[in-house]
Amino acid sequence: MDEPAIRLDGGATLVESVMATIRQRISARTLTPGAKLPSIRAFAQSMQVSKSTVVEAYERLAAEGTIRSRPGSGFYAAGQLAPLSLAEIGPRLDRAVDPLWVSRQSLEAGDDVLKPGCGWLPASWMPEAGLRRALRTVARADDVTLADYGTPLGLPPLRQLLARRMAEHGIDASPDQIMLTESGTQAIDLLCRLLLEPGDTVLVDDPCYFNFHALLRAHRAKVVSVPYTPSGPDIELFAQALTEHRPRLYITNSAIHNPTGAILSPVTAHRLLKLADQSELTIVEDDIFADFEHAPAPRLAAFDGLSRVVHIGSFSKTLSASVRCGFIAAPRDWIERLTDLKIATTFGGGRLASELVLTLLKDGSYRKHMDLLRARLSRAMHETSGRLRAIGITPWIDQPAGLFLWCSLPDGVDAADVARRALSAKIVLAPGNAFSLSQTASRFLRFNVAQSADDRIFRTLEAAMAH
Amino acid sequence: MDEPAIRLDGGATLVESVMATIRQRISARTLTPGAKLPSIRAFAQSMQVSKSTVVEAYERLAAEGTIRSRPGSGFYAAGQLAPLSLAEIGPRLDRAVDPLWVSRQSLEAGDDVLKPGCGWLPASWMPEAGLRRALRTVARADDVTLADYGTPLGLPPLRQLLARRMAEHGIDASPDQIMLTESGTQAIDLLCRLLLEPGDTVLVDDPCYFNFHALLRAHRAKVVSVPYTPSGPDIELFAQALTEHRPRLYITNSAIHNPTGAILSPVTAHRLLKLADQSELTIVEDDIFADFEHAPAPRLAAFDGLSRVVHIGSFSKTLSASVRCGFIAAPRDWIERLTDLKIATTFGGGRLASELVLTLLKDGSYRKHMDLLRARLSRAMHETSGRLRAIGITPWIDQPAGLFLWCSLPDGVDAADVARRALSAKIVLAPGNAFSLSQTASRFLRFNVAQSADDRIFRTLEAAMAH
Repeated sequence: MDEPAIRLDGGATLVESVMATIRQRISARTLTPGAKLPSIRAFAQSMQVSKSTVVEAYERLAAEGTIRSRPGSGFYAAGQLAPLSLAEIGPRLDRAVDPLWVSRQSLEAGDDVLKPGCGWLPASWMPEAGLRRALRTVARADDVTLADYGTPLGLPPLRQLLARRMAEHGIDASPDQIMLTESGTQAIDLLCRLLLEPGDTVLVDDPCYFNFHALLRAHRAKVVSVPYTPSGPDIELFAQALTEHRPRLYITNSAIHNPTGAILSPVTAHRLLKLADQSELTIVEDDIFADFEHAPAPRLAAFDGLSRVVHIGSFSKTLSASVRCGFIAAPRDWIERLTDLKIATTFGGGRLASELVLTLLKDGSYRKHMDLLRARLSRAMHETSGRLRAIGITPWIDQPAGLFLWCSLPDGVDAADVARRALSAKIVLAPGNAFSLSQTASRFLRFNVAQSADDRIFRTLEAAMAH
Repeated sequence: MDEPAIRLDGGATLVESVMATIRQRISARTLTPGAKLPSIRAFAQSMQVSKSTVVEAYERLAAEGTIRSRPGSGFYAAGQLAPLSLAEIGPRLDRAVDPLWVSRQSLEAGDDVLKPGCGWLPASWMPEAGLRRALRTVARADDVTLADYGTPLGLPPLRQLLARRMAEHGIDASPDQIMLTESGTQAIDLLCRLLLEPGDTVLVDDPCYFNFHALLRAHRAKVVSVPYTPSGPDIELFAQALTEHRPRLYITNSAIHNPTGAILSPVTAHRLLKLADQSELTIVEDDIFADFEHAPAPRLAAFDGLSRVVHIGSFSKTLSASVRCGFIAAPRDWIERLTDLKIATTFGGGRLASELVLTLLKDGSYRKHMDLLRARLSRAMHETSGRLRAIGITPWIDQPAGLFLWCSLPDGVDAADVARRALSAKIVLAPGNAFSLSQTASRFLRFNVAQSADDRIFRTLEAAMAH
């Protein structure tokens, strides 16, 4: 009975009408989850109400959970399930340990910025002469190579060559089980599209490559992590996670693990595959660091024969990230559906990119480049390791293969603090928690030894740690 | 009370156990939706039961809807919601009118196959000399261009140039509102990731570019279509669809519509935007055929000022499909989240591809190429149109711009039948229903005039229609 009186109260009606407008925008998703709401001043003006009306409306919407307030920043549409606010994975409110932030800092960095935290080699370490030669070769190719879409699976001779290269790692894949993609990331993305339903659980290593978190979030997957040891995932906890969470997928790097540099031991590989068999788990083996190995490590796809393990790779880390080319080797009866998904979501593949990669692989320059690169990385690994130890930063594994040193800081030093301070000195670091779902790596940093030659890095680290 | 007795019946228990095994594989998704079940013989052997037990188990699983039988082909895991069986969009059981099948036939076709049904120009119509020159130019670029990841938004000078080109169409986009992608398709895919929740409704034209159906299916969207008229979507039915289905998105081509070649009229554009405003609808304007226009048509993004219209484009149709480069121009506050999604799902962009496109756009050869191309297409349009009329096939619109002629067949002739017969004569056609959600285009075929010069096409069409 009081209702009409209250509704006639001008203030209440206006507040409610402002609230209704926002709710409508959210439900029509003009305001998508995570989107910033109009400023109080601007919205008051556009709605022709007082600022205090908007303040009250926003506060009531925040109280009911429709929107969220971020101190000093404003109000944002709340989101559930939405893949939109990738920046807000897990409990991170700190851009300094936000995985996407690390990627973007590295991708955007100007020439004056040092990037020991980034995940790739400097351009000057790549096979420049070979790339120039390959471009000139392709400039003489037929018009179809220059201008046409790729075939659905991708360039046949490159797939044949990849099959032979996989055979060297004991992986038995025929060329028609291999599909080319634009990148290793796109390969995993297509597999997620094929295999995951929203809400499915995916197992990752802790720590793991941080982009897995962002990618899985985009697929609305529930992510569960298992601690990684120097010989692979902790098998007891892995078994426990399988029982508790019934994950659909496990995504890992078995050869050279990112960020730790660890290598899966044969005994762990075997136990892992047995567990996977028992619980019908599919494994995505992301092997993009394969060619950095000094001695061949066991591959899950080799033990398993591509039955429940999917193997993926790319040339972004070893040849060029500018020429986009990755691949998937998968069980034969998945390839048709992966191809349909690739056509539906990106249409053709990059014929040019695969032609360039093929040219470099065929003429022998890739092998020579990799021999030199491994030696150069070994030296950089040795040197960086020594310089880090000298300032109290300790590698987790002694002299791993690849480009990464996963290191712990002295007691009481927080990696995110160090990363924040280093950034103001124009140095991009990769703090441990960006890689850790459980947020238990706050004392770790990942160093890319190929990006760590400059003295300034170590001086800045020392100062930032002493802060 | 009877239960134990029944369970002791050996037959029932074995059948149930076979059923349980299949159910478990489906729930663990070792058998993904759409995947073929093991053959009866093989499964009987591996389970060590009789074939009749497996037959009964499969039949009961089919009866309960867990699996599906396809006559002459076997049993398949049933799928709900899953984006996996893209081949099974809507009620199509016929690969001849399956959109992905048309794409794959075109992408896979050998040199002896004619492709009047495909969606792109022959390689020989592309700017071959310019592409070779651009490759040689890029072969001399710095090492960062050759080997590094692109910046998150993509090559700045190319974005500046795209902003200027859009301004020519009245679209006011600043370079920081433009994000480069690998293709037009990837641009739409990223927008779907940003804007759609599973189960959201998306409006498309009927007919429309068939890959929209496949792409939206991959996003688990509900697709609703509105008939397209020679001046744009039927506005009455469009308004009705908005009220009835509350779609989140509308995806269309406003300039040169695929497959009809129609052009949106200013009055329809205006009414459409008014309706979109009222129901807070977002519009994706796929403008990949922009440069084929003879006279500038209205752009929704120009009227709307990139507030609820997102504009996308690419160079696959005009320059090279081998060099992958597309773009999105979007409201400013979406770009950050689109960039996060791009990094999460493909990491970097193709620096090389965008550098090649920039080189071709800058040196003036692109403009010259397009002038010649438009003239050449006009001639081919005139010629193909005449030859089709001569055999009783009638263009829906007289002499449209672009590469497509949307044509109706004589009364009583079914386009899918014609397409099937043509395929056995090594000619890939594009039957109307591949473009039509409502399956009301069974009398239509889309012809690509640039791929329709060969006499054999018209002879085969005549024979196939007379069948």
